[in-house]
Amino acid sequence: MKLPTSLLDILHATFGAQACSTHEAERLAYAYDNSRRHALPDAVVFAQAHAQVETLVRACREHGVPVIARGRGTNTTGATVPVQGGVVVSFERMNRILRIDPDNRLAVVEPGVLNGDLQRALAPHGFFWPPDPTSSPWCSIGGNLACNAAGPRTVKYGSPRENTLGLRAVAGTGDGFRCGTYTSKGATGYDFTRLLIGSEGTLALITEATLKLTPKPSGLRTLRATYRDVTSAAHAVARIMAQPVTPCALEFIDDVALQLAHDHGGDSVPLAGAMLMIEVDGEPATLPSSVDAISRAAHGDGLETLHVAQSAEETQALWSARKALSPAQRTISPNKINEDVVVPVSRLPELVHGIRQLSRQHDVLIVTFGHAGNGNLHVNLLPRDEAEHERAHACLADVFALVIALQGTLSGEHGIGLVKREFMPLALEPSTLGLMRNVKSAFDPDGILNPGKLLP
Amino acid sequence: MKLPTSLLDILHATFGAQACSTHEAERLAYAYDNSRRHALPDAVVFAQAHAQVETLVRACREHGVPVIARGRGTNTTGATVPVQGGVVVSFERMNRILRIDPDNRLAVVEPGVLNGDLQRALAPHGFFWPPDPTSSPWCSIGGNLACNAAGPRTVKYGSPRENTLGLRAVAGTGDGFRCGTYTSKGATGYDFTRLLIGSEGTLALITEATLKLTPKPSGLRTLRATYRDVTSAAHAVARIMAQPVTPCALEFIDDVALQLAHDHGGDSVPLAGAMLMIEVDGEPATLPSSVDAISRAAHGDGLETLHVAQSAEETQALWSARKALSPAQRTISPNKINEDVVVPVSRLPELVHGIRQLSRQHDVLIVTFGHAGNGNLHVNLLPRDEAEHERAHACLADVFALVIALQGTLSGEHGIGLVKREFMPLALEPSTLGLMRNVKSAFDPDGILNPGKLLP
Repeated sequence: MKLPTSLLDILHATFGAQACSTHEAERLAYAYDNSRRHALPDAVVFAQAHAQVETLVRACREHGVPVIARGRGTNTTGATVPVQGGVVVSFERMNRILRIDPDNRLAVVEPGVLNGDLQRALAPHGFFWPPDPTSSPWCSIGGNLACNAAGPRTVKYGSPRENTLGLRAVAGTGDGFRCGTYTSKGATGYDFTRLLIGSEGTLALITEATLKLTPKPSGLRTLRATYRDVTSAAHAVARIMAQPVTPCALEFIDDVALQLAHDHGGDSVPLAGAMLMIEVDGEPATLPSSVDAISRAAHGDGLETLHVAQSAEETQALWSARKALSPAQRTISPNKINEDVVVPVSRLPELVHGIRQLSRQHDVLIVTFGHAGNGNLHVNLLPRDEAEHERAHACLADVFALVIALQGTLSGEHGIGLVKREFMPLALEPSTLGLMRNVKSAFDPDGILNPGKLLP
Repeated sequence: MKLPTSLLDILHATFGAQACSTHEAERLAYAYDNSRRHALPDAVVFAQAHAQVETLVRACREHGVPVIARGRGTNTTGATVPVQGGVVVSFERMNRILRIDPDNRLAVVEPGVLNGDLQRALAPHGFFWPPDPTSSPWCSIGGNLACNAAGPRTVKYGSPRENTLGLRAVAGTGDGFRCGTYTSKGATGYDFTRLLIGSEGTLALITEATLKLTPKPSGLRTLRATYRDVTSAAHAVARIMAQPVTPCALEFIDDVALQLAHDHGGDSVPLAGAMLMIEVDGEPATLPSSVDAISRAAHGDGLETLHVAQSAEETQALWSARKALSPAQRTISPNKINEDVVVPVSRLPELVHGIRQLSRQHDVLIVTFGHAGNGNLHVNLLPRDEAEHERAHACLADVFALVIALQGTLSGEHGIGLVKREFMPLALEPSTLGLMRNVKSAFDPDGILNPGKLLP
């Protein structure tokens, strides 16, 4: 579709020649995200101010043209792929940290600020913002909010929904609005802040966020435990989460993933039936008793080794297996299918056992690893050719069915986007989906915001 | 309004004679709440099952009759007063704790479970549910969720929005639905759980809640600090919240409130310019360093005394002033106006100073006390006669204007209900209010759920 001239004129007038493009090279660069799906937008604009976004959405609504918000495109679900064309609005240039306010434990940021840049700016004040996706150096806060993207620290500190106080945004009508507060508590009307977080740009475009900051504990200890098999490691996770000391990271890696990481990362990566990486933080005086409590819970049937890192170097060495894992997977399968299902922690043994069976049954290589303390596992299917790719897709449906049977849900932190929307009816009743469609219409009556995403 | 016979027939068939009444005595008992506003409902029903609530709402929708959900009526905003008549549905008999699941740190409860009963049931498992309103022994979890009711512990552990995983509910269409998860993490569609929490029964009726549990720390220390004046105490609050050790209670009491409590509660209540009650919790080994950090922050210009309780008896004695406060206020003014404004913590000195000025200007007795660690102060106006009552209402508008000017909001934990809805346009832009009305229609197209509340 070619955009009408009257719309293009408004885009040029609003964004200027340097921040508005219909060149094919530019459109190609904004056609895909980390899902490796792609679809060409009709134009790309680079927002720098809230008022521009209002003008953009109003004009697109008048012309019936889709608007797709984009942070840095690190999401893995196709949430930023413009499947119905339209205008991609990139927030990468709207990237100022507007205020760091340690006295009120908050920061006000534009959506294009990178997660890593924010953390660096907060460090001298003794604070951090808990969400820490692996893509932290390259992903934007706006994208983190849109997808409710989390990371290892979520097990102790929560996801963006627990760490955001308020938002400024533009609805699908083009109307700008503020929601939430500058305070750590509020009971003034409906909670739109959390509603927008995780809505993947389908309800409104976030133009400013007030983030809740957490004091950074001064001490950290890292433990690594290896187990005879995945089931005994999964039982250990459940034991650790059932006692009072909450770790700030509790990561699980299965035997297949360890073998891959070992092949790729060398002998510092242990070979075992499964491995847990565990971190506890707090004031230094509290750490020995925390490490004791975690160690006691980690012990049990199937434990083979338990190391507590004694230095920063040793901590880095312990994490090497986890770090080697992503590149290792790519060498096997450039088309890995990257899922992030969640189950209640006590059902993890059943999940890992069930996935093992599905891997055999469908003859597809699967690695499982991830944020076990939240019951949130990355289940990565690694098909090596076209035939395996087809089998992998059949297997995926069985994985989701298993997860739902275990009282879990489709996604812990990646979101739904394009690639999981067909599975939404597995997770949500028709009545819930119907209400979600109603709420979508309440914010975006003409359905121009990121069409084709999240809702089936 | 007399209810149509066809509707009454459905109510009787659904609830039975023992759980459905149109007797005046029963209607009178459910005509008011702790706001002391009242309005007669046309019928009262006592729900015991989700399916009954679906039938009720469907039938009321067909007949265009309001439905007002009620926990135990402890709210202070008139949120449960049936101002347009209709059917009050009390959840007091739907009060089973369905599941306590320490391994997954969750409990599943019916809405009528009392907050205090839940805490007692959780204690043997070593867990608690953080929200702890003063009315904890008598208020229901359903009411806590409807109002996002909080309490002192919120400063460290969050409000119901941070401590609820999922809900089952019935929308204004009569359609039942589930939202949220049984897991501590989820990114599967829109966050309806948080949207319903704090919506005061205007979007849906909650019939089941999955609550997130927190391990109960085994140690607690209590500190009491008195200050020369309210401003120096408010500055101390800001200092305490700007350092890394987060107290699990940080309560402020001004000089007027102290005098009242002293008159009522005796000499154990100190007389001072202002007082802070501070608690820290954690594993016992961590407490000395936490008390040190808090003590250092509490010190500063205007500090007069600082006591650390050394025993359970001493802790109780230190809290006596705070406990004596509520009854003391009633002796002065049976018609106290009970507000719970919030400002960013660093603006507390300006808030208490400004309120002091407004008290003089309008010649109305005002006491301020409450959850200062969240910037959440109970501003209670205590008019003693009709003339003072009128002046108090004029003063209230100025209090809200002051709070908004300080980047605060109308309510921290009581909600809006009937008594604050006229002030909503002070706190929220027209565009935000417009979207809230759209969302209301998305859940309750005919506006039968708790009409006349929350939205102006």
